Amino acid sequence: MANPSLLILAGDGIGPEVMAEVKKIIGWFGTKRGVHFDVSEDLVGGCAYDVHGTPLHDDTMAKALQVDAVLLGAVGGPKYDTLDFSVKPERGLLRLRKEMDLFSNLRPAQCFDALADFSSLKRDIVAGLDIVIVRELTSGVYFGEPRGIFPDNEGGRVGVNTQRYTTNEIRRVARSAFELARRRNNKVCSMEKANVMESGILWREEVQWVHDNEYPDVELSHMYADAGAMQLTRWPKQFDVIVTDNLFGDLLSDLAAMLTGSLGMLPSASLGAPAANGRPKALYEPVHGSAPDITGKGLANPIACILSFAMALRYSFDLGDEAARVEAAVEKVLADGLRTADLMGPEGGTPISTTGMGDAIIAAL
Amino acid sequence: MANPSLLILAGDGIGPEVMAEVKKIIGWFGTKRGVHFDVSEDLVGGCAYDVHGTPLHDDTMAKALQVDAVLLGAVGGPKYDTLDFSVKPERGLLRLRKEMDLFSNLRPAQCFDALADFSSLKRDIVAGLDIVIVRELTSGVYFGEPRGIFPDNEGGRVGVNTQRYTTNEIRRVARSAFELARRRNNKVCSMEKANVMESGILWREEVQWVHDNEYPDVELSHMYADAGAMQLTRWPKQFDVIVTDNLFGDLLSDLAAMLTGSLGMLPSASLGAPAANGRPKALYEPVHGSAPDITGKGLANPIACILSFAMALRYSFDLGDEAARVEAAVEKVLADGLRTADLMGPEGGTPISTTGMGDAIIAAL
Ligand SMILES: CC(C)[C@H](C(=O)O)[C@@H](O)C(=O)O
Ligand SMILES: CC(C)[C@H](C(=O)O)[C@@H](O)C(=O)O
Repeated sequence: MANPSLLILAGDGIGPEVMAEVKKIIGWFGTKRGVHFDVSEDLVGGCAYDVHGTPLHDDTMAKALQVDAVLLGAVGGPKYDTLDFSVKPERGLLRLRKEMDLFSNLRPAQCFDALADFSSLKRDIVAGLDIVIVRELTSGVYFGEPRGIFPDNEGGRVGVNTQRYTTNEIRRVARSAFELARRRNNKVCSMEKANVMESGILWREEVQWVHDNEYPDVELSHMYADAGAMQLTRWPKQFDVIVTDNLFGDLLSDLAAMLTGSLGMLPSASLGAPAANGRPKALYEPVHGSAPDITGKGLANPIACILSFAMALRYSFDLGDEAARVEAAVEKVLADGLRTADLMGPEGGTPISTTGMGDAIIAAL
Repeated sequence: MANPSLLILAGDGIGPEVMAEVKKIIGWFGTKRGVHFDVSEDLVGGCAYDVHGTPLHDDTMAKALQVDAVLLGAVGGPKYDTLDFSVKPERGLLRLRKEMDLFSNLRPAQCFDALADFSSLKRDIVAGLDIVIVRELTSGVYFGEPRGIFPDNEGGRVGVNTQRYTTNEIRRVARSAFELARRRNNKVCSMEKANVMESGILWREEVQWVHDNEYPDVELSHMYADAGAMQLTRWPKQFDVIVTDNLFGDLLSDLAAMLTGSLGMLPSASLGAPAANGRPKALYEPVHGSAPDITGKGLANPIACILSFAMALRYSFDLGDEAARVEAAVEKVLADGLRTADLMGPEGGTPISTTGMGDAIIAAL
C-alpha cells in the first residue's frame, strides 16, 4: 500500500520556521516508528502571490485535492496589506477551505496546566480548560452571494454580504459536533442569533433536528452568540463542544483561544466529507497567525504546528496512539520548564529557540 | 418652558423592579433639585404582547417618537420563547431602535474598583478599565433585506440574512465615535472583517475617510473583529473607544461588559440624530437582560438602570453635573459595602434588596 500523502504549505511569516520543526517530527516517525508519509511542499499566501501573482496557484489547489492531508503554516504579512481583496494571502486559505469542502473546523481551546498563569483570566477559571469549538467553515457570510461594494442611491456606496445557510450545510456540521461530543463529554452547545436572524432560526431548528433524530443521547443546549461570548468569558468550563457558524466561530474560537493564554500552543483541524479511501479531506493548521513581528528571529513557538500534525495523525490517519505520543512529548518539555519566548513568564523557565523546542520534543518522543 | 419628557418602558422580568428605583430618583430630582420631567409610562416586550398581541403597539411607538428620551428596562422571558419571530419581545426593542433611528449605541464597560474582584479576569487586567463600545444599531445584518427562510433546491430550506452598510450609515456612527473620543482619551479603534467581507472593506474605508477629513486629531486604528475579541480578552485597557457594526458590536460589547464582572452595573445609551429641539432622539437601557430567574424576589440590582438614567441626564438633557452626582452616589454606596445579591462576593459586604439599594443611593445623593 502506498504511503499516506501530505502536502505542506508553510506559507508566510513564521510559517516556514514552525513547519521546519514539524518536518523533523515527520522524519522521526519514519525512522523510529516506521510511519512513513509521502511529503510534498508548495506555496500559499503572500509567498505564492510573489511567485505566481495569486495566493493559491491552480496546480497547488489540484495537489491539495489529491493528498490525504494538508499541513498549513500561516499566511499574510504587512507587505501584502495593500493588495487587492481578490489576491490577498487570506484568499488562498479561503479557496482551500471552500474547494476542499472543509466544512468542519475543530478548534480546541485547551489550557495546559504549566501555562495557566499566562491567561488574563484567573487560574481557577481556566486551569484544566478543555473545550472544542466546531466552526462551520465553507458557508455563511464568508461565501454567500450577492457580495461586493456598489453605488448606493445617495451618491455614496453600499457594502453587501450575504449570510446563507442550507439545511444540509447545517446538518453536516452539527453531525460532526455530535460525533466529537460522543468521544468527549457528550455535551454540545449551539450558538447563533436566532432572536434577530432567520438564518439563526434555521440553524437552531436543524441542529435540534439532527439531535432529536440522530444523537438523542448527546446533551444539547442553544445559546445566543452574544451570551456565548459572555459565558465563555465568565466560566468557560461549562462547555464541552460548541458548534456555531463561520463568522461567529471566527470570533468565538479566537476568544476561546485567548482564554488559554497561550496561542502558540493551539492547533486546529479542518475536515470535509470522507474521500473515496474513507479519509476525510483535511487541512491542519495552528491557530496563531504569521506573526511578522517575530519572523526569522528563532522566537516562534512550533508547538501549535506540531500539535496540528498530531491532530492529522488522529483524524486523518487513525493513529490516535501516535498522536497521544506527540502530545505527551509536548507536555513533558513544558513540565521540564522549556519555554519559547512567548511562554516566558515571571516564574521563569529555560529559554529555548524554535529549533531548540523542536529538538526537545523529538528527544522527549 | 415645558418640562423635558420621558417615556418609561419598564418591560418584562426585572425591568419593572429596577425601573421603580429609577422613578424614585426621578422624583428626588424634582423635589430636591428642581429638575422636573413629564413622565409617561407604557408597555414593551412580552407584557405588551400579552395586552396587545404585539411587542410594541403603534401608539407606544408614536409616543416614543415624541418624547425627549425613552427609558427602557428589559424585554423577554421564557413565557415568550415559543412565540413567532415577528412578535417576540425583542422585536419591540428592535422596532424602537429602527424607527427612532438610534444609530449610535454607546456601551461603556467600566470596572468599579470596589467590584474588580468579580471579574473572571485578573484584577490588574480589569481594575480601572474604562472603555466605550460604539455599536451601530440601525443597520447591518439586523435589518438588511433580503431575509427569511426559503425552500432550497435540495428539498431542504435555506436561511438568508443580508449584511448591508452604506457610506452615510458608516460615516454617521463613525462621527459619533470620534466625538466621544474627543471628550475622552482621543483614541478610536474600528473593528470589522475587511479581510473576508466587502462590507468590512467599505466600513474601514469610510471610517478612515471621516477620520482624515473631519477628525485628524483623533488617533485611529483598525482591527479585525476576531483579533478584537482576543485583544479585549488579553488587555482591554489598550482601548478607549471602539466603533463597530451592529452584529460585531452585539458580541463585542457583551464580551466587554463581562470583563468588568458586574453586568448589573452597566448602562447604555442609544442615540439618533438631533431632533428639532436640538436633542438627539434617545433611548437608555441597562445592558443586563430581563433575568427571569430572579424576577420578583427583590434580588435585582437597580444600578445599571439608574446609571442609564444618569446617561440620559448627560446626553439628552445636558445635565452632566447632575449625572455625575448620581454616579458619585453609586460609587459611595459601593464604597460603603452595600451589595445586592449579584455583588455579594467572598469578601462580604452588607446585603441589600433592590429597593434598599435605590433608597441608599437616594440617601447618598
Ligand atoms: C485569515 C482569516 C481569513 C481567517 C478567517 O477569518 O477565517 C482567520 O481569522 C481564521 O480564523 O482562520
Ligand atoms: C435582545 C436582542 C435583540 C439585543 C440585540 O441582539 O441587539 C441584545 O442582545 C442587545 O445587545 O441589546
